[in-house]
Amino acid sequence: MVGDTIAAVATPPGEGGIGIVRVSGPGARDVIKAVFFPRYGRGVDEWASHTLHLGTIIHPDDGREIDEALVAWMVGPRTFTTEDVAEFHCHGGAVPVRETLTAVLRAGARLAEPGEFSRRAFLGGRLDLAQAEAIIEVIRAKTRDGLGAALSQLEGQLSRRIDQVRADILALLAHLEAMIDFPEEDLPDMGSERLRVTVVHIGKQIGDLVERSRTGRVLREGWRTVIAGRPNVGKSSLMNALLDEQRAIVTEIPGTTRDAIEEYIDLGGIPLRIVDTAGIRETEDIVERIGVEKTREYLEKADLVLVVLDGSDGLNQEDEALLRSLVDRPAVVLVNKSDLAIRRLDDVRLRSLVGKMPILSVSAKEGWGLQELSDLIRSMVYGQDGSTVAGREGEGPVTRDGGRSALVTQARHREALERADFHLRQALEAVDVGASPDFLTIDLKAAWEALGEITGDTVGEDILDKIFSSFCIGK
Amino acid sequence: MVGDTIAAVATPPGEGGIGIVRVSGPGARDVIKAVFFPRYGRGVDEWASHTLHLGTIIHPDDGREIDEALVAWMVGPRTFTTEDVAEFHCHGGAVPVRETLTAVLRAGARLAEPGEFSRRAFLGGRLDLAQAEAIIEVIRAKTRDGLGAALSQLEGQLSRRIDQVRADILALLAHLEAMIDFPEEDLPDMGSERLRVTVVHIGKQIGDLVERSRTGRVLREGWRTVIAGRPNVGKSSLMNALLDEQRAIVTEIPGTTRDAIEEYIDLGGIPLRIVDTAGIRETEDIVERIGVEKTREYLEKADLVLVVLDGSDGLNQEDEALLRSLVDRPAVVLVNKSDLAIRRLDDVRLRSLVGKMPILSVSAKEGWGLQELSDLIRSMVYGQDGSTVAGREGEGPVTRDGGRSALVTQARHREALERADFHLRQALEAVDVGASPDFLTIDLKAAWEALGEITGDTVGEDILDKIFSSFCIGK
Repeated sequence: MVGDTIAAVATPPGEGGIGIVRVSGPGARDVIKAVFFPRYGRGVDEWASHTLHLGTIIHPDDGREIDEALVAWMVGPRTFTTEDVAEFHCHGGAVPVRETLTAVLRAGARLAEPGEFSRRAFLGGRLDLAQAEAIIEVIRAKTRDGLGAALSQLEGQLSRRIDQVRADILALLAHLEAMIDFPEEDLPDMGSERLRVTVVHIGKQIGDLVERSRTGRVLREGWRTVIAGRPNVGKSSLMNALLDEQRAIVTEIPGTTRDAIEEYIDLGGIPLRIVDTAGIRETEDIVERIGVEKTREYLEKADLVLVVLDGSDGLNQEDEALLRSLVDRPAVVLVNKSDLAIRRLDDVRLRSLVGKMPILSVSAKEGWGLQELSDLIRSMVYGQDGSTVAGREGEGPVTRDGGRSALVTQARHREALERADFHLRQALEAVDVGASPDFLTIDLKAAWEALGEITGDTVGEDILDKIFSSFCIGK
Repeated sequence: MVGDTIAAVATPPGEGGIGIVRVSGPGARDVIKAVFFPRYGRGVDEWASHTLHLGTIIHPDDGREIDEALVAWMVGPRTFTTEDVAEFHCHGGAVPVRETLTAVLRAGARLAEPGEFSRRAFLGGRLDLAQAEAIIEVIRAKTRDGLGAALSQLEGQLSRRIDQVRADILALLAHLEAMIDFPEEDLPDMGSERLRVTVVHIGKQIGDLVERSRTGRVLREGWRTVIAGRPNVGKSSLMNALLDEQRAIVTEIPGTTRDAIEEYIDLGGIPLRIVDTAGIRETEDIVERIGVEKTREYLEKADLVLVVLDGSDGLNQEDEALLRSLVDRPAVVLVNKSDLAIRRLDDVRLRSLVGKMPILSVSAKEGWGLQELSDLIRSMVYGQDGSTVAGREGEGPVTRDGGRSALVTQARHREALERADFHLRQALEAVDVGASPDFLTIDLKAAWEALGEITGDTVGEDILDKIFSSFCIGK
């Protein structure tokens, strides 16, 4: 356990109704005694855990009043950090929050490092590393589905999967090592076929998690999306229509910010990061604005291209060139202006150009076809059966701890999974060539360690420093 | 009492450890039942007031998990709004906060108007209007002294003063009206001298509050301050030195923002709003950058001019012209570069130019004289004896409810006080010319009503709408 008492502002900076200064550690009780004058007489020694108390925050040096506040008092180990925790809920302005923090520091607390509360939760055994990392994913989630993936990780879905695979590896290792150490004894020998099946099974579980990391990455980082098409086909209207869907939700909720998500379109839970939003809005012509070379580069880097065509017009050379350049790219063709009676687009010709690329008829003006687009993109992310994530829209309730599968969102986890995956392939190769069990155990141990980095069983201080320093202060 | 249940985000927008969605009203209990699944079995019906509970926020429609959260449960009337209050403490990111609010609204709460929680606190009788207005002053305080003034208003110092004066007026009115209604009865007649003393006494109390509004305005809005002087005398160094004092406090506290105060220098608790900060920083020469006319305008509008001279140089024509233009202006002369051994400035000549203007020897480079400047400006704001505010720096503790006098910070209050003041002067005139008591009562009633606007006894819905709509959402 860490010995000292830390403090930090836990609410976002800026103006609001409530600002919180959070204190954790063995000295939290003394901090309350030094800086808090309760309205109703009784001091912290008489308070039950998990209770709230009204009073005045005072400066410990001169008794100067700083703010009226509620104090939340929570006694460890049943707290976030597993230590005693005091939260000062003062008025949410820069000066009251700053002055309260100053008083708390003056009363003996030390300013917390970024992520230090979460680090203590990890060190105290309340969360494993993957769970602790999920906290910042929850905070930085860009859409509802991203939030769901982060929450499931916070609740330990990923950790349980990892632990299961590690337990399987450990069982196999124990068996192999017994075979190595006591070759003469009457151990039930594992036939090479049985051994192969076990290694394949473990490898499959890891491979499955690697696969899920693709979905996880999309939910975490968003799909780099380019809206392409010649001028006046309706790219800007389409983007506004997509944004409007979202704005309808956001506008009814003042007080929530759009800053963090403003470059993202939340399409039914999938974050689309629209490339060159300004270009689309300003000139309605990405090519004109940034040049042909740069556009090609954008298109090549995109995770998704939305090609907009004008259904009331024929395919011209420009359209055809664009479509040809996108063969084998992840693209969706949107035939816009389907609200107009006139349709001049040659569907047979279009299909022959785009191959298997999905084609949707839409009207950005009327909002037609946007739901279909949303469904299509969901199925591109999750796979046709949506099996990767339960609790999709309209699929009914997801019960606590049930249903939602483990998604891999962090690059660090993906990298560790890929290493484990590599070692399992090596192990399988060793089995196939009939190598000695020693070779096998080396790779299995390496895989076991790589997986342990995810849950934090096998990481050093330096990795912990790196992970938690990317957290915000106060978390 | 208002009947419905309101909800809003109570923390500032942005990223932080904790985000709070606050719910108030008779339905708060049902909202918890609909959206919260406690970790430890027991539901809200078994919770004591002012307790915290860990669990999961779920969407009421489909049971989808939204976030892990602590819920604070507080039963009215011992709450901020005097109603039942539930606070959902979720992770402080845009999406978890938004989704939690969406769930709460879905569960039957209505989105709160700006300031609606505070309005309910007022309507529920927990705060009078002056106190409710102080909430937003606390949040928007720019310095420690500003915070102190707002807090004292929140605690009712101003309200008590106002109530006292109103009680005095009412007592006098009762007496006068008895004299009018029952002229024949054997009432102890109030001699005209005694009457005059009473009216003067009431007028003095009001006049005192009007006077204090000057100090209150400074603390609330800051002093418009111009740093003037010819190039290379050290204006920019001086500003940096003043800012550095402040930065030393702010830098040790990451997580607090300087956004709200960045145009202000906090000089020992007094906010100085530095005019044309950019000009000083960029060219070190306000005149050169904005032209002589504009500079003159700035100087005329300034609440305070800090004239910087170079002590290692003689007074030149430019210095003298500047000093002459400032006669009778609230200005302080700072003779800079006092760290240099050479001193060529002619002190006798300087004194003859500036009259009674204070002169301080400073070194922006070494930080010399800045404390003296701070003390000087405090005494300019508070008066020489500092009597307006107890609890000044180094004056020892201010006890709860004790010592700190009522300051008037809001323009609305000043305006009402000035009207009351006007009517008291009229009343005094009526006494002096021996007018009938009827005339007197009209003015006394008007003063009584004007004062009642401050505490909210005599205001209509329209005024309330105007006041609370300037609040932030969630407060």
